[in-house]
Amino acid sequence: MKFNPDKIKEATKADFDAAWNAGKKYVSSPGINEKYPRASLKYGKPHPVFDTIQRLRDAYMRLGFLEFMNPIIVEDRDIHKQFGYEALAVLDRCFYVGGLPRPNVGISDERIAEIKTILGDVSDEGIEKIRQILHSYKKGEIEGDDLVPEIASELKVPDSKVAVMIDHVFPEFKSLVPVSSQNTLRSHMTSGWFISLGEMIDYQKTPLKLFSVDRVFRREQAEDATRLMAYYSASCVIMDENVSVDDGKAVAAGLLSQFGFSNFTFRPDEKRSKYYVPDTQTEVFAYHPKLVGSKTKYKDGWVEVATFGIYSPSALSQYNIPYPVMNLGMGVERLAMILHDSTDVRALTYPQFQYKTGWVMSDSEIASMIYCECRHRLQSKPRS
Amino acid sequence: MKFNPDKIKEATKADFDAAWNAGKKYVSSPGINEKYPRASLKYGKPHPVFDTIQRLRDAYMRLGFLEFMNPIIVEDRDIHKQFGYEALAVLDRCFYVGGLPRPNVGISDERIAEIKTILGDVSDEGIEKIRQILHSYKKGEIEGDDLVPEIASELKVPDSKVAVMIDHVFPEFKSLVPVSSQNTLRSHMTSGWFISLGEMIDYQKTPLKLFSVDRVFRREQAEDATRLMAYYSASCVIMDENVSVDDGKAVAAGLLSQFGFSNFTFRPDEKRSKYYVPDTQTEVFAYHPKLVGSKTKYKDGWVEVATFGIYSPSALSQYNIPYPVMNLGMGVERLAMILHDSTDVRALTYPQFQYKTGWVMSDSEIASMIYCECRHRLQSKPRS
Amino acid sequence: MKFNPDKIKEATKADFDAAWNAGKKYVSSPGINEKYPRASLKYGKPHPVFDTIQRLRDAYMRLGFLEFMNPIIVEDRDIHKQFGYEALAVLDRCFYVGGLPRPNVGISDERIAEIKTILGDVSDEGIEKIRQILHSYKKGEIEGDDLVPEIASELKVPDSKVAVMIDHVFPEFKSLVPVSSQNTLRSHMTSGWFISLGEMIDYQKTPLKLFSVDRVFRREQAEDATRLMAYYSASCVIMDENVSVDDGKAVAAGLLSQFGFSNFTFRPDEKRSKYYVPDTQTEVFAYHPKLVGSKTKYKDGWVEVATFGIYSPSALSQYNIPYPVMNLGMGVERLAMILHDSTDVRALTYPQFQYKTGWVMSDSEIASMIYCECRHRLQSKPRS
Amino acid sequence: MKFNPDKIKEATKADFDAAWNAGKKYVSSPGINEKYPRASLKYGKPHPVFDTIQRLRDAYMRLGFLEFMNPIIVEDRDIHKQFGYEALAVLDRCFYVGGLPRPNVGISDERIAEIKTILGDVSDEGIEKIRQILHSYKKGEIEGDDLVPEIASELKVPDSKVAVMIDHVFPEFKSLVPVSSQNTLRSHMTSGWFISLGEMIDYQKTPLKLFSVDRVFRREQAEDATRLMAYYSASCVIMDENVSVDDGKAVAAGLLSQFGFSNFTFRPDEKRSKYYVPDTQTEVFAYHPKLVGSKTKYKDGWVEVATFGIYSPSALSQYNIPYPVMNLGMGVERLAMILHDSTDVRALTYPQFQYKTGWVMSDSEIASMIYCECRHRLQSKPRS
Repeated sequence: MKFNPDKIKEATKADFDAAWNAGKKYVSSPGINEKYPRASLKYGKPHPVFDTIQRLRDAYMRLGFLEFMNPIIVEDRDIHKQFGYEALAVLDRCFYVGGLPRPNVGISDERIAEIKTILGDVSDEGIEKIRQILHSYKKGEIEGDDLVPEIASELKVPDSKVAVMIDHVFPEFKSLVPVSSQNTLRSHMTSGWFISLGEMIDYQKTPLKLFSVDRVFRREQAEDATRLMAYYSASCVIMDENVSVDDGKAVAAGLLSQFGFSNFTFRPDEKRSKYYVPDTQTEVFAYHPKLVGSKTKYKDGWVEVATFGIYSPSALSQYNIPYPVMNLGMGVERLAMILHDSTDVRALTYPQFQYKTGWVMSDSEIASMIYCECRHRLQSKPRS
Repeated sequence: MKFNPDKIKEATKADFDAAWNAGKKYVSSPGINEKYPRASLKYGKPHPVFDTIQRLRDAYMRLGFLEFMNPIIVEDRDIHKQFGYEALAVLDRCFYVGGLPRPNVGISDERIAEIKTILGDVSDEGIEKIRQILHSYKKGEIEGDDLVPEIASELKVPDSKVAVMIDHVFPEFKSLVPVSSQNTLRSHMTSGWFISLGEMIDYQKTPLKLFSVDRVFRREQAEDATRLMAYYSASCVIMDENVSVDDGKAVAAGLLSQFGFSNFTFRPDEKRSKYYVPDTQTEVFAYHPKLVGSKTKYKDGWVEVATFGIYSPSALSQYNIPYPVMNLGMGVERLAMILHDSTDVRALTYPQFQYKTGWVMSDSEIASMIYCECRHRLQSKPRS
Repeated sequence: MKFNPDKIKEATKADFDAAWNAGKKYVSSPGINEKYPRASLKYGKPHPVFDTIQRLRDAYMRLGFLEFMNPIIVEDRDIHKQFGYEALAVLDRCFYVGGLPRPNVGISDERIAEIKTILGDVSDEGIEKIRQILHSYKKGEIEGDDLVPEIASELKVPDSKVAVMIDHVFPEFKSLVPVSSQNTLRSHMTSGWFISLGEMIDYQKTPLKLFSVDRVFRREQAEDATRLMAYYSASCVIMDENVSVDDGKAVAAGLLSQFGFSNFTFRPDEKRSKYYVPDTQTEVFAYHPKLVGSKTKYKDGWVEVATFGIYSPSALSQYNIPYPVMNLGMGVERLAMILHDSTDVRALTYPQFQYKTGWVMSDSEIASMIYCECRHRLQSKPRS
Repeated sequence: MKFNPDKIKEATKADFDAAWNAGKKYVSSPGINEKYPRASLKYGKPHPVFDTIQRLRDAYMRLGFLEFMNPIIVEDRDIHKQFGYEALAVLDRCFYVGGLPRPNVGISDERIAEIKTILGDVSDEGIEKIRQILHSYKKGEIEGDDLVPEIASELKVPDSKVAVMIDHVFPEFKSLVPVSSQNTLRSHMTSGWFISLGEMIDYQKTPLKLFSVDRVFRREQAEDATRLMAYYSASCVIMDENVSVDDGKAVAAGLLSQFGFSNFTFRPDEKRSKYYVPDTQTEVFAYHPKLVGSKTKYKDGWVEVATFGIYSPSALSQYNIPYPVMNLGMGVERLAMILHDSTDVRALTYPQFQYKTGWVMSDSEIASMIYCECRHRLQSKPRS
């Protein structure tokens, strides 16, 4: 409650103890619903994955790396340049992007009649305008989302009526089938690095240390506790004459130490990707004290968190890059799971789970929820 | 140079002035190439776009919003649920995702001969193994990138030979044509918000304040100084019984003030998207002192930076959401351009320009470089 | 307003256009006081000085420096070790710290009487307890703020009464005069660096790169537009055999580039501090585009922002440090002023100005306010 | 090693497998000393205390608080205004600041002779200049650190000689004894809050939510595993008509939840400070899962981390503040210790321990090191 300082000054001077005790009556006593914990304070919360992204950006920059943005849409011929004979196997895991063609529509007398029933009496001139607009739409002169407004304004009728009209009169629009292009969504950051390094080779000096934390996409049969079709990759490259496998080890240790990992071992990766020099592809295992005895499957504290290798001159040459390149990459969601004791990546990324369970749910819990709640969405099969 | 403290202590005690002056000889004088500015210090650098993302995340969290991750792959039927009759126009701007089918291959005697010439003498058993592996690959039991290693390990031959073999013996793989699915890449965050709010409606309390800064994709005829096919959207929602247009204005002002914008005006958006309640879609114009007299086209200091509106109950109902929802969104690259005096978004995002010109290039400069340097890539036409 | 999704689904199916328009009635229209801009959104705001501190920490860490905490209370003999004959001049600018002595009080019969009038009838035992407590307080066994509670609990009387009693019965407490010790508050970070490097010399390897952004204190005649008695210093050291003046230039450039400074010049400092090797003390002038034409006194864009030098072996030897050390330091408030167009540091740091004027006030404005508003506080003269 | 892309392109085309394997020879194999782990990557590291400060700033801002800077030098009469009869007990724990007086020196013939022996033959005019400079120094017209340079430039002799001269000829300077003022260093942030709120009361609207994380000083008999004489306090205030104890609970929970604390209890504080309304002073106990079974003394997971209360109108009135004020404060080092499993605050803050043991050392380890290594410094007794 507000009070009068002068009055209280006097009172305090007259009798400190009495005045001090009287202070109580100016303190509010809220109703039961305004009481804590009912009345809690809302505050801005970071999402574990995006929070981990930010921590990774800091960690890379504290290692002296420059942040970079790589192409996310990559032509399939780039995959061929990078993977050689392996390309088809890789492309099998890639999403291709495409879109709807634009129909070539004619306006018969019958359709003119329908148009008039829906839009009201439209003059021949009006019909002609519709014809022209549909034509320049087909030619790509008008964007899809301008089609309806354009007709509406030209004919001075409500756009919602126009939408209805197109829907009824021109079924061609509804029967459109999307057509795929030769462009893919990068399935790992490497596809972008080759293009980027190739484009910069004429003006960037070595040693060059770049990193990027951004989206990658992988076409899976289905998603599960550890695999998503769209996720974040934290990737870096060091381009230098004298790059070696030890640079990969040093970057891995320098990066992961900043997340509390305290011990590291390195094992040759059985998967021998063609874009790496043979026998340079290495898996990074790191030890995190907080994992010991955790409910994750890494009870012993050891977890595989990253992979690195040296890009093959065979692939680099396709982009006229004359230096060997060390590349290290890791999955952001995987690291976020470790940092948040989460055992199922879907607890972090599926809308129906976020903020529901403190990011932690067992694989089985989620499996059941997926079954009963929203089966269709989570098993989204891009090829069905 | 290293020195002996004890000796210098004595010398200093004996004659401070002399000892002090003698200190010079312990300071290195590096060769011309170790001298500044030649020997400059490398340091970690943030990318303008990702730096702006981080500042937007902070700004939203300082407004009390919770960070959220929305679905990025959205089925086209969701677009229909959200846009009603407008859906087809929107889908025209969407990327559909698809992928390569898996060929059904048989192994003729002729092919067996070819296999043996490439892999060396393979037993009938070996051929049978190849047949089985190709079969389970077709059935999706083996992932594409496991195909080659699988055969290699089963037959104990180098994987590179296997890759060559498949390439020569099974042309079916090379003639594969990608097939599109019914799934799209979200063209704005709204497509994700409807799904997410629908999934959470049973356990989240109102008022609910969420934000997300993440990738969206738009299928353009071509990219230019202000349009990219893949970019970052900074979007938020407030779901509450009593949400109003003024919430949009307050969020816009609260968010943009944190970036130095000091004055705001709001104009009804002519584009009347069907997922917004009519007449609630609003364009936000903001005034930034540093823009005044800048070389951007916002010399007067005013720029259009965001759009907001109230989601239409018609669309919300499709997801069983019983509350009105305020949605505000802005393009991250656009804000990054303003903060970095950049007039062409490609200077921030195309690999051949980053770190070349301090993020600032004129539209024409870039246009010319695009023409001469890497014409094919930048005009990437997903539908060609 | 909340609505019924099922009803609206039907309505939308029946007549999209009508249902869509009907959506308006679910959007709140708040009263004038809930309308923007009256109802604005509160958000968390960083203070310019602490925000600059955080940016400096990031900048140093992106240069690969380790953050360190240095002693803030420094014995005056350390100043002598560091400055030699110059020490007294420096100590003249230092704050010494001291405190109140503890009185030796006796309890006469007269006083016993007074005690009883105030606390009520206290037994001889009670008086004895008071005597003991005062004694162990004198001996430092009881902390000052435990004195009153201790007596209160021992005698089972309200602590406020005890406070009154001590005030009336023991005037010695009121007549206490603070006594100064030989300890000072560091007047620049250097005083801390010498001590810290000396303490670490046996276990830290070179090259060693450390930084600290923390409080320093300078005893001024008075504060003004550019001088505060307590401020933040952003300081770093590089200890290495081969350290040179060019390391100072490189660090200055690497650090300031991260704040938008784009050009640098270096001038020998006329002030030839004895803790630096002669002729190594250098002033850093930096050019910031946004300063050009600003209302600050740096209209030409150039400002002096930092000073560096190589610590003198004469001073280093006093701490048994056998390597030369490059040291660079800058005032945080000064940088914050530049970044916020502020021309008077008091606009950023005095309570009566913060959040009042967007951190910007003219020297004269402030001067006048200081005069009329709170003369006594701002001219606080530690020596009066 | 650098290579020729064209040559390798050919080779790859001719025989992918051979070219791919040949890639190995372009990968460096560093000498033993360049190998990991010997050649590890240096990176910028945050200090636990300053890192915790930054996290606290974020946490407060995500709760919507404004960051503020409070006075750090406080006149002792302010302590009296705030604590009433309790003031002396509090002042007993405060550092007073003071400094060296300036000597009134005369120049006898004898001294003139000495001056000449040291500086070389100085004219009478020169002596007169010295006299004037010493005089205006005494009057405060010349700063202490300008004294030597001033004389040196006036007489055109090296400043080091002047320093020696003053040292020998004017022993008064060496016999100076620091004198204490009536100003103190704040012993908790509250001393600053009262002053700040009083200064702002005429222009700030309620509710007002402010926070500050900054230095406070406490004059202890000695430092130990949990007590430092100079440390960081993270403090906030909410000034509002209707402030209540529940606001303290809500802020405590909202703040600490952001550090992983998941459960909270509140106990009335036995210490009944006079600047709080009686019975509002509350201790906050919080539960942190990671503490369970830790080697700290909080094995059960519960730790006392903060204290809050409502400022007493009796104290507020002294500053003409007419609203009750909730105040919450916590020690930063204490939180940093919890977050880093440290059991002795000196492991985080003493120069001889930092980066030596991963911030973790047992009390006894440190005690022994303190004894042998640097006894004098750590027992720094301000009153000796």
